[in-house]
Amino acid sequence: MTGRGFPEADYRSRTARAQGAMQAAGLDALLLTTAADIQYLSGFLTRFWESPTRPWYLVLPASGLPVAVIPRIGAALMRQSWLRDIRTWNAPDPEDDGVSLLADTLAELVPGGGAIGVPGGPETRLHMPLRDWQRLRERLPRHRFIGGGGVMRRLRMIKSAAEIARIAAACSVADRTFARLPEIARPGAPLSDVFRRFQMLCLDEGADWVPYLAGAAGPDGYADVISPATERPLAAGDVLMLDTGLVREGYFCDFNRNVSLGPAGPALRGAHARLIEATAAGFDRARPGATAADLFTAMDRVLTGGRSIKQAGRLGHGLGLQLTEPPSLLPSDRTPLEPGMVLTLEPVIDLGAGRILVHEEDIVIRETGAEWLSSPYAAAMPELA
Amino acid sequence: MTGRGFPEADYRSRTARAQGAMQAAGLDALLLTTAADIQYLSGFLTRFWESPTRPWYLVLPASGLPVAVIPRIGAALMRQSWLRDIRTWNAPDPEDDGVSLLADTLAELVPGGGAIGVPGGPETRLHMPLRDWQRLRERLPRHRFIGGGGVMRRLRMIKSAAEIARIAAACSVADRTFARLPEIARPGAPLSDVFRRFQMLCLDEGADWVPYLAGAAGPDGYADVISPATERPLAAGDVLMLDTGLVREGYFCDFNRNVSLGPAGPALRGAHARLIEATAAGFDRARPGATAADLFTAMDRVLTGGRSIKQAGRLGHGLGLQLTEPPSLLPSDRTPLEPGMVLTLEPVIDLGAGRILVHEEDIVIRETGAEWLSSPYAAAMPELA
Repeated sequence: MTGRGFPEADYRSRTARAQGAMQAAGLDALLLTTAADIQYLSGFLTRFWESPTRPWYLVLPASGLPVAVIPRIGAALMRQSWLRDIRTWNAPDPEDDGVSLLADTLAELVPGGGAIGVPGGPETRLHMPLRDWQRLRERLPRHRFIGGGGVMRRLRMIKSAAEIARIAAACSVADRTFARLPEIARPGAPLSDVFRRFQMLCLDEGADWVPYLAGAAGPDGYADVISPATERPLAAGDVLMLDTGLVREGYFCDFNRNVSLGPAGPALRGAHARLIEATAAGFDRARPGATAADLFTAMDRVLTGGRSIKQAGRLGHGLGLQLTEPPSLLPSDRTPLEPGMVLTLEPVIDLGAGRILVHEEDIVIRETGAEWLSSPYAAAMPELA
Repeated sequence: MTGRGFPEADYRSRTARAQGAMQAAGLDALLLTTAADIQYLSGFLTRFWESPTRPWYLVLPASGLPVAVIPRIGAALMRQSWLRDIRTWNAPDPEDDGVSLLADTLAELVPGGGAIGVPGGPETRLHMPLRDWQRLRERLPRHRFIGGGGVMRRLRMIKSAAEIARIAAACSVADRTFARLPEIARPGAPLSDVFRRFQMLCLDEGADWVPYLAGAAGPDGYADVISPATERPLAAGDVLMLDTGLVREGYFCDFNRNVSLGPAGPALRGAHARLIEATAAGFDRARPGATAADLFTAMDRVLTGGRSIKQAGRLGHGLGLQLTEPPSLLPSDRTPLEPGMVLTLEPVIDLGAGRILVHEEDIVIRETGAEWLSSPYAAAMPELA
């Protein structure tokens, strides 16, 4: 094991459940190409996915263990996983970057006429060059390449106790980091410097790395929640928002905090209290039997009186191995909530003039209701002296 | 502008050159889906790509400005770019996540029968759900979807002076960080803690974020260069290697350093000196007119006497907006070197028993030869007391 993986029994169980779902979906194999899907079944964890050069493949046959078809550079690390069948090629190879090895592997594992599932629905990616994808299908003309039947989506959406513990640990790191905001957020500090110092605090508190940080600051809220830092110095009266997705042992947290530099005006204070109220409404509604859409509705009722249903962005989402995962808290997402789902609640208020205020917390669905993973914020927006 | 972008003239120039290459390749439009390609033509920079939920599109027509087709959540940030035609949809929308908007946009910009290029060669990805890709083609049955003709690859491979300055700035941050290794690398420190502290130092020295860090430590070299940290404490006699790809103003550096904790044995000292010699040989060979393969050959001659040609991994690569970019320093990559190319030189020595030693530096190709971007290491591996 990598030291960051789970017991082998966990991977065996995931594999068996995937294979059960594959059978129901009529799939003779699943072809997986993304970091999260491959990590989920193998435990293979590396930041080397940052390099787009080499494709990586995992083939899950209808029975038996997953087979890794990977660049030689990853062999030593993959051999620490529970997998036994690890096939490598000498990547990068501009002429044949694993296509032949992958085609041969699929041909060996899947009978002619068999169905090879490839995740292709919302939030998925095919993490290989398009030309190689075309070549692969040409190499296997008697096989059917079809959608992945939502197998990985459904499997990964329900977290095990061990996964939840890791997400909770990531949330604790972020909680401790946000508590140290007074150390770095003061009038005159450029926002870019606050971003750097915040990431340093995340690491100091135990993050393995900080893949995501966004934020903004301004006297009347902010224009969006995805911008990188500007050089603008913080000013008294600003509301500062930081939203982090840090990773601990391979799992993300994803939540934000708003603080006011000095006393906040009544509009901002009111909006913040409303966001906390909406979060609580989502929390209260979150239990097995409710749907993702129900959480949207519960929060939207507080935020807009239920009027934003047509033009709404989502008000939260799943998280785990990725910063954002299914489901989406949206009117159109009827995914039933189940114990083990980890979600963010992320209400937003339109302040007018192109300004918004956003709050976010992380929760897990239990048999009897929701449980906080982040330490929930109070209605009063904290004011830094 | 985002504050991190380039002058509008730069984007206009890139766009014009792309359109010239498109004409030569017979493309009526380019459809771009990845962070790096979209950033290259628009200046749109956000860490929100960490979320796989929403696809993002940029359409470059045969003439005129690029058109952004993006989720509404990115509208405020994209409006700070030089683009004027920004079309948004209310993502995520599980029913139609921008496919109709993208199809309508392409239909408007490209006449029926026209050729829409989509990058599909080595090191590219189609950053959208496979099902949406199929739906898009069904929506435009009279258009031809073909490869991107290497337009973006060739364009991005040659960096402007402003881009080189940013990569150099990122390299300087890493140089200063490596100089502070004695602060954090000492016997007894768990490698995972060294990783955390190293990232904190990167940020303290001016990194905007640290998307990549790999490394290893052991008495006889290490098994690979892509592993995350273990909890193993550093021990006297270990060689410690850290390899970072940090980002400053949107651009990466990518190089590593080996240090010895206490005196290194003769085998490691000899191997390190050989790596530096190989790096110098690559550097000396690097000039316009030589090919990527020539740099491989020059380094491999020092490393193995030229014997590894058949089984070699690459010995370096391009970098810029991404940690690794074309070309590859490989026997099969005949890309001619041109002024403005930024490359890593990354020789590796096999120490036997599954152990290797790797060294890496960053260079830029100038009219008359190569120039260091990282501060080149000396033959003697540094020893920490």
